[in-house]
Amino acid sequence: MSSVQYDSVRPLRWAEDGLFMLDQRLLPHQYQEVFYDNVADVAKAITDMVVRGAPAIGIAAAFGVALAARQRYDGSDSWRAVFDEDMVMLKAARPTAINLAWAVNRLCAMLDDIQGDPFSILLEEAQRIHDQDIQANYRMGELGAALIEERCAVMTHCNAGALATGGYGTALGVIRASCARDLVSQVYADETRPWMQGSRLTAWELLQDKIPVTLLAEGAGGHLMRQGEVKWLIVGSDRIAANGDVANKIGTYNAAIVARHHGVRVMVVAPTSTIDMDTASGDLIPIESRGSAELLSVGEIRLGAEGANAWNPVFDVTPANLVDAIVTEKGVVLEPNAAKMAELMARR
Amino acid sequence: MSSVQYDSVRPLRWAEDGLFMLDQRLLPHQYQEVFYDNVADVAKAITDMVVRGAPAIGIAAAFGVALAARQRYDGSDSWRAVFDEDMVMLKAARPTAINLAWAVNRLCAMLDDIQGDPFSILLEEAQRIHDQDIQANYRMGELGAALIEERCAVMTHCNAGALATGGYGTALGVIRASCARDLVSQVYADETRPWMQGSRLTAWELLQDKIPVTLLAEGAGGHLMRQGEVKWLIVGSDRIAANGDVANKIGTYNAAIVARHHGVRVMVVAPTSTIDMDTASGDLIPIESRGSAELLSVGEIRLGAEGANAWNPVFDVTPANLVDAIVTEKGVVLEPNAAKMAELMARR
Repeated sequence: MSSVQYDSVRPLRWAEDGLFMLDQRLLPHQYQEVFYDNVADVAKAITDMVVRGAPAIGIAAAFGVALAARQRYDGSDSWRAVFDEDMVMLKAARPTAINLAWAVNRLCAMLDDIQGDPFSILLEEAQRIHDQDIQANYRMGELGAALIEERCAVMTHCNAGALATGGYGTALGVIRASCARDLVSQVYADETRPWMQGSRLTAWELLQDKIPVTLLAEGAGGHLMRQGEVKWLIVGSDRIAANGDVANKIGTYNAAIVARHHGVRVMVVAPTSTIDMDTASGDLIPIESRGSAELLSVGEIRLGAEGANAWNPVFDVTPANLVDAIVTEKGVVLEPNAAKMAELMARR
Repeated sequence: MSSVQYDSVRPLRWAEDGLFMLDQRLLPHQYQEVFYDNVADVAKAITDMVVRGAPAIGIAAAFGVALAARQRYDGSDSWRAVFDEDMVMLKAARPTAINLAWAVNRLCAMLDDIQGDPFSILLEEAQRIHDQDIQANYRMGELGAALIEERCAVMTHCNAGALATGGYGTALGVIRASCARDLVSQVYADETRPWMQGSRLTAWELLQDKIPVTLLAEGAGGHLMRQGEVKWLIVGSDRIAANGDVANKIGTYNAAIVARHHGVRVMVVAPTSTIDMDTASGDLIPIESRGSAELLSVGEIRLGAEGANAWNPVFDVTPANLVDAIVTEKGVVLEPNAAKMAELMARR
């Protein structure tokens, strides 16, 4: 499988004058697209996790901006007031993934230079963001695969795949490119509680590509790594701070600590749209907490005892000193720190 | 709450000439006891996890030995042949918890000195094992609580509570005793995939005692510990090797690595019946793997993608060097090693 031919799973696409998004809450049992023609519904879909994964959220938001412009532009001088309220709402849909604000800001920055109806220009830019994301993933796939020195098993957490991006994936893009080079003996994907992105999404999308994947409980990661087969933990990110600290799905920090304990290297794969140079370090990244119901029940099945409290932060921060490599479309940063991140972002 | 008055949750009891066991698969939604009058069904109940937790498995097995004697003894010289086959089957019901073999061997060793029908003597001994386990838990509760120097939050994994023992619990016994001394600000219980002992059992049994408990995903353990509130990770064990390596529920090793990373101390609480001096180190402890269905589904709800493999080891080994204290009814071993374990076991 060559990365350039990859055309398997796509979480969102523009068609029929609106945005189709694959409802990721229903996977792997149902493959169902939902059609969006207004920004409020796109924001709600992001909040409700119809679409998830930082780059995919960014792309969805970009199309949401275009939809808002189509709804609000009426030729008057005052259309921006309501539109700007839409943008505040859209940016607040989820707090941790910086790609959301990045995409909204990128499109809104164009408005001052646009005369007349901005819709078609914004839509074109949203499609460009989508295309560039896929191209960035191909590039990261190549760069990340080049770090893997010999055939080995790899472990991943959550879903940083085609489903989390425009297509192809960040962490799973590296895994796809590595598989194409016969560098991967086995992919271990942990379940990723509470939303089960590993079981539901990562396993499903790798199986589409016939990549061998084995699921395990998150708690089994140490027991697995102790056996020596796994050489890399490869994950995505929702926001990388200016010093290289990495916010990602809850459990990433645990997995990185356990990886370091066993000499398993940690690769974070994310486009530069995920890097937030305005946030100095990871402890300043807002960490979303979601409702306890995600922990206490699975579907209709209640798991937790009645009356029990649950704490459900859905991201954590892995300090830069636990990260061996950050792979972006602009290049690779080994043993990241603030100076190296600044140098990366200064590249053209 | 004084430990001596504890009479809340009991996972098994002898009554009406048989063994009643609380079906822990149905908790916390249904409190249902099942009646057992023969050894084959007791063995199956252990395999199927109607009863679980190393000390509780040992007690159930002891009653199973008595039931086997009642079934097989017929006054002939040949009754032992079938009985001995029962014992092989019973000991094979689950592989990791050494308490199972310990209890069976303790009762069978008495048979050579018994003239005539052994049932009543074996039943008495099974009840003694049950009583001694509860007394050991009270003692460990006191010893473990004495290690907690100041009021703090504690974290536990799986269920090492009343439900896992004759009553009161090992790790949760220490937590109960510590709560009685106002040493615990909050108990954090992780869910414990895949069987959800934390959500289903630990939360439920602590709530019975009005002990404040907060559930979290296992992956959130590092994010929690980083905040500094948790000072101790307190867990049980299914088998402790002669060098102090600790087999316990899958995820314990991860949690111990993450605890050490944050300077959170690790306390293992287990009666000496869990210590296997015939097994030199943890890598020699047999680790049970269970079916992949436990990972791929919750009840009727399929979570994993169709076609995905799953790896489901249900125990792991935490090396002695990650353990700060092993608390037994005979005393406490700090920074365990082979010499200290041998000294402990030589005590009267």
